[in-house]
Amino acid sequence: MSVIAFLTDFGQRDWYLAAMKAVALHTAPNIPMVDISHDTPAGNISHAAFILNQCWLEFPVGAVFCVVVDPGVGTDRAPVAVEAEGRFFVGPDNGLFGWLGNRVKRCHRIANAELYRAMLTHTFHGRDLFAPVAASLAAGEVTIEQVGPVQDNLVQAPWPEPEYDARTAYGKILYVDHYGNCITNLPRDDLINRFNLEHAIVSLHPRRIPLLRTFGEAPRGQPLAYFGSGNLLEIAVNGGHAARQLELRENQRVELHVK
Amino acid sequence: MSVIAFLTDFGQRDWYLAAMKAVALHTAPNIPMVDISHDTPAGNISHAAFILNQCWLEFPVGAVFCVVVDPGVGTDRAPVAVEAEGRFFVGPDNGLFGWLGNRVKRCHRIANAELYRAMLTHTFHGRDLFAPVAASLAAGEVTIEQVGPVQDNLVQAPWPEPEYDARTAYGKILYVDHYGNCITNLPRDDLINRFNLEHAIVSLHPRRIPLLRTFGEAPRGQPLAYFGSGNLLEIAVNGGHAARQLELRENQRVELHVK
Amino acid sequence: MSVIAFLTDFGQRDWYLAAMKAVALHTAPNIPMVDISHDTPAGNISHAAFILNQCWLEFPVGAVFCVVVDPGVGTDRAPVAVEAEGRFFVGPDNGLFGWLGNRVKRCHRIANAELYRAMLTHTFHGRDLFAPVAASLAAGEVTIEQVGPVQDNLVQAPWPEPEYDARTAYGKILYVDHYGNCITNLPRDDLINRFNLEHAIVSLHPRRIPLLRTFGEAPRGQPLAYFGSGNLLEIAVNGGHAARQLELRENQRVELHVK
Repeated sequence: MSVIAFLTDFGQRDWYLAAMKAVALHTAPNIPMVDISHDTPAGNISHAAFILNQCWLEFPVGAVFCVVVDPGVGTDRAPVAVEAEGRFFVGPDNGLFGWLGNRVKRCHRIANAELYRAMLTHTFHGRDLFAPVAASLAAGEVTIEQVGPVQDNLVQAPWPEPEYDARTAYGKILYVDHYGNCITNLPRDDLINRFNLEHAIVSLHPRRIPLLRTFGEAPRGQPLAYFGSGNLLEIAVNGGHAARQLELRENQRVELHVK
Repeated sequence: MSVIAFLTDFGQRDWYLAAMKAVALHTAPNIPMVDISHDTPAGNISHAAFILNQCWLEFPVGAVFCVVVDPGVGTDRAPVAVEAEGRFFVGPDNGLFGWLGNRVKRCHRIANAELYRAMLTHTFHGRDLFAPVAASLAAGEVTIEQVGPVQDNLVQAPWPEPEYDARTAYGKILYVDHYGNCITNLPRDDLINRFNLEHAIVSLHPRRIPLLRTFGEAPRGQPLAYFGSGNLLEIAVNGGHAARQLELRENQRVELHVK
Repeated sequence: MSVIAFLTDFGQRDWYLAAMKAVALHTAPNIPMVDISHDTPAGNISHAAFILNQCWLEFPVGAVFCVVVDPGVGTDRAPVAVEAEGRFFVGPDNGLFGWLGNRVKRCHRIANAELYRAMLTHTFHGRDLFAPVAASLAAGEVTIEQVGPVQDNLVQAPWPEPEYDARTAYGKILYVDHYGNCITNLPRDDLINRFNLEHAIVSLHPRRIPLLRTFGEAPRGQPLAYFGSGNLLEIAVNGGHAARQLELRENQRVELHVK
């Protein structure tokens, strides 16, 4: 028994997600189905890629991710199935999976017409193609080799690497979450390896913020930096909404200074 | 093994949906449960009916739809169970199922008090009546005949038919989705049978929009018409939000002209 | 077979809920998982406690509630597992479970490090600790006694009791739901035992509202009071949004007068 995890920009008001799950039920009637998020801004590939990057390794080996943020649906972008670390990814090759880099073990272009709907619509490959292929993989009815020919490359979307000098790490905010916490591209392990963090200060010009362990170590209403659950440096306000209160946004520069 | 699919106007902030699922678990502890949508505007029956119409046939035969948009809860509107094309519908008879027309094979008024809660509240038949009946049907514990007496008619809610003359189809916008795409009542098959669509133009006075195959065939930011995944004519903006950018709304008139 | 029900303030935009479910799947791969709500205002413990109070007894015996509204994550607040009426509650001891009062049969502080992640982050105990413990309980892999030592007391959060005199009940609004219906702390059974409700009037100074059975008994657009599905007195507007139209909010005083 596996699991299908869905990540889309479909929102939750319409029937699009239900249509995908309904189609998957034909092939995999008892499979657990988990929603990751459906509130990615419409067509925002890098946003969905970041979300997937933050949670995919929490899932058991064998999990199938059906990822449909597909602004190019119906054009010549390729539908793919990708294997990495024992998990499987099904969706359009538009950068959604480009950050997997050399963790990719197998990549196949979906072309086996027996696995999906004969009459593909031009606007909803989530229902017509990706959901049935994901269900066939999750149910163990096909191997990834059977979905179509090997594809050598994925559209790349490399992780945005921070820069470093002797006493400073230069990063940026990649994602603002529901709480207003701002997640940067500065990885805990890199910072620990390079620096003595004991007296580190995070600067968001002109603001200087202490590096603490958790929200409750800052006075209520005050900002803090900390290493979040994805082992990246984050900025929050204890009991508040950092993005609004500090006027932070995605792509904004963040620096960490040590003595 | 069947599936229960839920469609309500409950929203997702409260515990109402969870209460329905909790009740269903008593009767059908392992049944897959799929959410269609819970964001129908409060009491908007035709909105929910449209959503259901767009996805019910994607579900496997045996699926049970538990549909609770029930502004008349506690009054004398009838609770019903309906069978059509091997699927089952449970909810109030207020127009939610009226569009099924002659696809209805059986319709029974829910009256078998052994199937639902002895003390019905006056305001939450979703929990007290519809969820337990849906679970009993989905679990195969009862047949539809056992839920109560035959009911001859459903409250009607016929599909709003378009009109045609020699070179024009006259329709309207039925639904605006999460992306701002506007779905009309103009069906692809009718239009193809009546017209040569090669030079068709869709007009939303005073705007004239080309009929294309998919979003990516229009320049970015430009409007297009296309046949959507439900085989209805839709209006979108490539990479944009048609309803906002073109100031479109439900019930607005749409015409398709051919040469 | 049991069920895990999740109640958090995580919202639905990010991957946090999916990460918890992914972790639970390792231990309990086939367990049904039900979402109660994830839209509790960030850090609002009493709001989540009210939601849980309104639905927990609908769930079958054996259900495990994984409740993560945890503004003190990473500080010294205790992680607990609680048993009441055959159901189990897992989350931080910060008042979320304080309203259970003497229904609590067992309460244990979670301390058995074999049950959760060796490297606890300081900010996401939902994923690292509560989800795996909930899954272990739901899967029957451990008993509640095995999660850690007995804890004698929970942080209290008693139900806000109304006051009464000979002809009046004095209460307040505890919760405004998705429809704008306002749920008070005035319980149906208490009122029926104390008063003859035949000519009762609910007053929200200066407004006086009739006590009816259900929405449809008030003229469309007019306010009514009624006993809701949780057996508490509620205020609604038939076909409208009471909180907005009557300018009601949580904690506002409500009186019920009898002749």
